[in-house]
Amino acid sequence: MIRGRVMGEVWATKKAPRLAGRKLLLVAETCVTSDGERPTGRVVVATDLLDAGQGDTVVVAFGSGARNAESPGSRDVLVDAAVVQVIDGSSTPGAD
Amino acid sequence: MIRGRVMGEVWATKKAPRLAGRKLLLVAETCVTSDGERPTGRVVVATDLLDAGQGDTVVVAFGSGARNAESPGSRDVLVDAAVVQVIDGSSTPGAD
Amino acid sequence: MIRGRVMGEVWATKKAPRLAGRKLLLVAETCVTSDGERPTGRVVVATDLLDAGQGDTVVVAFGSGARNAESPGSRDVLVDAAVVQVIDGSSTPGAD
Amino acid sequence: MIRGRVMGEVWATKKAPRLAGRKLLLVAETCVTSDGERPTGRVVVATDLLDAGQGDTVVVAFGSGARNAESPGSRDVLVDAAVVQVIDGSSTPGAD
Amino acid sequence: MIRGRVMGEVWATKKAPRLAGRKLLLVAETCVTSDGERPTGRVVVATDLLDAGQGDTVVVAFGSGARNAESPGSRDVLVDAAVVQVIDGSSTPGAD
Repeated sequence: MIRGRVMGEVWATKKAPRLAGRKLLLVAETCVTSDGERPTGRVVVATDLLDAGQGDTVVVAFGSGARNAESPGSRDVLVDAAVVQVIDGSSTPGAD
Repeated sequence: MIRGRVMGEVWATKKAPRLAGRKLLLVAETCVTSDGERPTGRVVVATDLLDAGQGDTVVVAFGSGARNAESPGSRDVLVDAAVVQVIDGSSTPGAD
Repeated sequence: MIRGRVMGEVWATKKAPRLAGRKLLLVAETCVTSDGERPTGRVVVATDLLDAGQGDTVVVAFGSGARNAESPGSRDVLVDAAVVQVIDGSSTPGAD
Repeated sequence: MIRGRVMGEVWATKKAPRLAGRKLLLVAETCVTSDGERPTGRVVVATDLLDAGQGDTVVVAFGSGARNAESPGSRDVLVDAAVVQVIDGSSTPGAD
Repeated sequence: MIRGRVMGEVWATKKAPRLAGRKLLLVAETCVTSDGERPTGRVVVATDLLDAGQGDTVVVAFGSGARNAESPGSRDVLVDAAVVQVIDGSSTPGAD
């Protein structure tokens, strides 16, 4: 999983039928250094079941982990990334 | 999933039999910063079931997510990346 | 798997139900060069079943490997990264 | 999947029994920019069922996609990368 | 799969029970350019069933490919990376 910040939502009319009704967020991966938090430059597109908002710091899971967040044990989910946690805080200075 | 821009199509006569008839696109991954959109330098090859065209901004899914876009629940699909959405717009400034 | 150093714990009240009760760590990936150990800049979020503490050097497994650390053979675990070893030492100079 | 150029073949006497008889290629990932094609610096090792030769531009599939190229639907194939197409041309200037 | 050079072994007393008895190696990924071989900066931790030694050039497989090297067809193996070949030579100048 990675830690990132929600940049906003993307929308589309032309999409795979199995994505219909799903909310997709742009999330900018962040890392924490001695100088504080900064974006790594990697941006992922993730589904959101937790109603995360722009600016929220979140945990994104990938692959089967993400599909199990959507539908546990199911083998036919289309997504490969999902917001699984909205971070409240951290024991790492500068990481909340 | 990632967000990227369609660069064009690749074609081949020598290919794995299970790829016959599939349209393959070159997609350049993009990220969005305060300076606007720019390519990250990563280029992926993805199948396209949505008839995306050169210059379109798209969402690409990977792994089982991509295979489930092609054939839900199937376990024998060859591809590992598929265009699953053509982006119309975004709530992130500069990301559409 | 990768080698990294534990930065601290993240916490949240808003999370996927299947993450309830799980401890999540921020782990900074490290590499070892002739100049010694340094962070690569990649930070992952991993579950921890080994009670690793801040500053520990650990091995993190990903994907089904991580899910099999949590629940062997299970197909519905949400996580995609898990601490599977706390490193005591190494035969590589500077890598312990 | 990625696009890359075949650098050559690697050989070994000490190998996992399930790799016996398999041809393994070194493939340098390439990207296409406005300045033409250049290597990204990433090199992968992939099996080859298409008799690709040094200098050929190819598409490499990963994970289950690669295993399905070798043996569709099989769950016990060792490889994680396979050449699935030898590119003849492209609609992207400079990408063939 | 990737090509890399064995840096050494890591050891631990605190580990996931399913890793007990497994030898874990640090492997530095390498790439080959016109200037010869150099490390990419990526270091992975992989199991070793081939008795590879420090300084050996090896092929590392990931994910289910690695698990199938350990136990073909099994679905409960913890590891996600395994040494599957010790490279003897290559048709690429500078890559052996």
